[in-house]
Amino acid sequence: MSLDLDADVVTLCGQLVDIESVSRNEREIADVVEAALGPLAHLDVVRRGHTVVARTELGRSERVVIAGHLDTVPLNDNLPSRNDGVDLHGLGACDMKGGDAVILRLAAGVPDPARDVTFVLYEGEEIESEFNGLGRLVADDPGLLGADLAILMEPSDGVVEAGCQGTMRVDVTTAGERAHSARAWRGVNAIHLAAPVLDRLAAYEPRMPVIDGLTYHEGLNAVGISGGVAGNVLPDRCTVSVNYRFAPDRSEAEAVAYVRAFFAGYDVSVADSAPGALPGLDRPAARAFVDAVGGTVNPKFGWTDVSRFSALGVPAVNFGPGDPMLAHKQEEFVPVEQLRHCERVLAAWLRGKR
Amino acid sequence: MSLDLDADVVTLCGQLVDIESVSRNEREIADVVEAALGPLAHLDVVRRGHTVVARTELGRSERVVIAGHLDTVPLNDNLPSRNDGVDLHGLGACDMKGGDAVILRLAAGVPDPARDVTFVLYEGEEIESEFNGLGRLVADDPGLLGADLAILMEPSDGVVEAGCQGTMRVDVTTAGERAHSARAWRGVNAIHLAAPVLDRLAAYEPRMPVIDGLTYHEGLNAVGISGGVAGNVLPDRCTVSVNYRFAPDRSEAEAVAYVRAFFAGYDVSVADSAPGALPGLDRPAARAFVDAVGGTVNPKFGWTDVSRFSALGVPAVNFGPGDPMLAHKQEEFVPVEQLRHCERVLAAWLRGKR
Repeated sequence: MSLDLDADVVTLCGQLVDIESVSRNEREIADVVEAALGPLAHLDVVRRGHTVVARTELGRSERVVIAGHLDTVPLNDNLPSRNDGVDLHGLGACDMKGGDAVILRLAAGVPDPARDVTFVLYEGEEIESEFNGLGRLVADDPGLLGADLAILMEPSDGVVEAGCQGTMRVDVTTAGERAHSARAWRGVNAIHLAAPVLDRLAAYEPRMPVIDGLTYHEGLNAVGISGGVAGNVLPDRCTVSVNYRFAPDRSEAEAVAYVRAFFAGYDVSVADSAPGALPGLDRPAARAFVDAVGGTVNPKFGWTDVSRFSALGVPAVNFGPGDPMLAHKQEEFVPVEQLRHCERVLAAWLRGKR
Repeated sequence: MSLDLDADVVTLCGQLVDIESVSRNEREIADVVEAALGPLAHLDVVRRGHTVVARTELGRSERVVIAGHLDTVPLNDNLPSRNDGVDLHGLGACDMKGGDAVILRLAAGVPDPARDVTFVLYEGEEIESEFNGLGRLVADDPGLLGADLAILMEPSDGVVEAGCQGTMRVDVTTAGERAHSARAWRGVNAIHLAAPVLDRLAAYEPRMPVIDGLTYHEGLNAVGISGGVAGNVLPDRCTVSVNYRFAPDRSEAEAVAYVRAFFAGYDVSVADSAPGALPGLDRPAARAFVDAVGGTVNPKFGWTDVSRFSALGVPAVNFGPGDPMLAHKQEEFVPVEQLRHCERVLAAWLRGKR
């Protein structure tokens, strides 16, 4: 398998979708990306794990990072890709191999940009943050990410989405006492004890704060539940894994406090957490990019790695093809026209005024 | 590892406990049981899978089956065995290696019984009934089980327990729609939909019918729950595995109807089912045994293989050492005195009037 970077962006996106790359299985896609970028004389290519970084070194006065993750959520009977002429369908088409295809086209097709560019195609975005390839660069090699602006090509319907919500996973656990299920009155069923936990989740009303004129939308959802010892044993333990998405006016500490209060009376442990990012539209580099691509800005609901750039002091926005509402859905797709629009807008901006 | 059938019943029970034999891992214990019984000249020993059958063929006018299962529920930090002088502790001590130890002592120590005896030590009792070694004999080799009476040495505190409750496992499933957890309003969370399922279980009131003077006690319990796709995906499916224990006045068909009505509005599928057995104390062979060992009779709450013998037309009772309330509990044990009592009573009855 090899990629043809001279193919149009739609064909290239289909090729990327057809390389299955569910999180923790990014070796093959990283190999073909590295093999495609390596021969390009204007790029310095380095690899860290299954993350590929390709940089121009043209001595420009500005540098921009353009980044996308290579992994997807699990398969859901949605491979191989299918192009119906209007939309390209398939696992990851929207989140975010459409953005990756634009990145690869820019890397190959704009050899002499007005701004130096650092292209980053990375692993492990869809799972626990310890696996996040961009997070590993921040920790191990932050110099590779220095820039005046970062553009994350997460799906945003081809308009700029600013900021991002934070995300936190907690385990809410109930403890019972095992007993033979034929004599249940001698034990305590931990799964039954979890009924009020699910009741609270089902009744949850999301907070929707307005920040810099953008309306965010929080969420609190069970993303997993497990319990059970054997088919004839009252279980002594049930764990509900809950994902809290919090608006960027709330810190991680405030988010933890909220969740603990929400599940008052239950054992709550934090499994994973990443802060949100405020919209940051007061930063000149971000505002200039927004103006260049049309001026429209929406809030970003999903957590994205703009938060990692915010933490490094680099203003960052989301801008990519695909409807963010389709991310992680079985029927995800990316509109062909959005792929072309994003490539066109970014290529023009990169080639623009020196 | 080998067993010493000349050791006292308590030592032998400790040896059996120390051979880990969680369901589907009975090979080793069946090997040592077969090796211990094989050399005894008065027994014909056959093996089917990890089930061992040993029969006398003395031409007596009556035959009795004495049976016990070799498997246990999963480990729970309760091995090796520990004998404190009063009780023998450890996984399976109560359910039912105490009974197995008595069986092996009788097999070795009563070579000339007044009744022909068929000893059965079998696999797969603690899991789905398709794995049940006795059930396999019923299906494949019912002639091996022909008898005037069957005694199952399930823990019954050394008194006769009659009948047994039926057991049925059903899966109650909710269906939602996947979405990215950052935009939860675009999907439907199947785990949240399961909240009323757990609410109904938590509010369940058991039926306690009186049959032949014995009070049974039903139970309806979640024994497993699962759901979840990934840490940032609204799950589209949640399954609650429910175990219904029903009194023997209710048929399997009636039990299914009850469970479907209880979970009305939800998708219910039957995973596993085994009928109960009525007390059967009207049968002469059962009544005679009860009288011989003291006359006290309690209801049996747990499902046991008396139901399989009932289906073959063989009257069957439960009689074994150990408190049935301790079965499947982490701290299970069997009282030393009950081990000795059961061996003594059964040996005397087997040697008794010809």
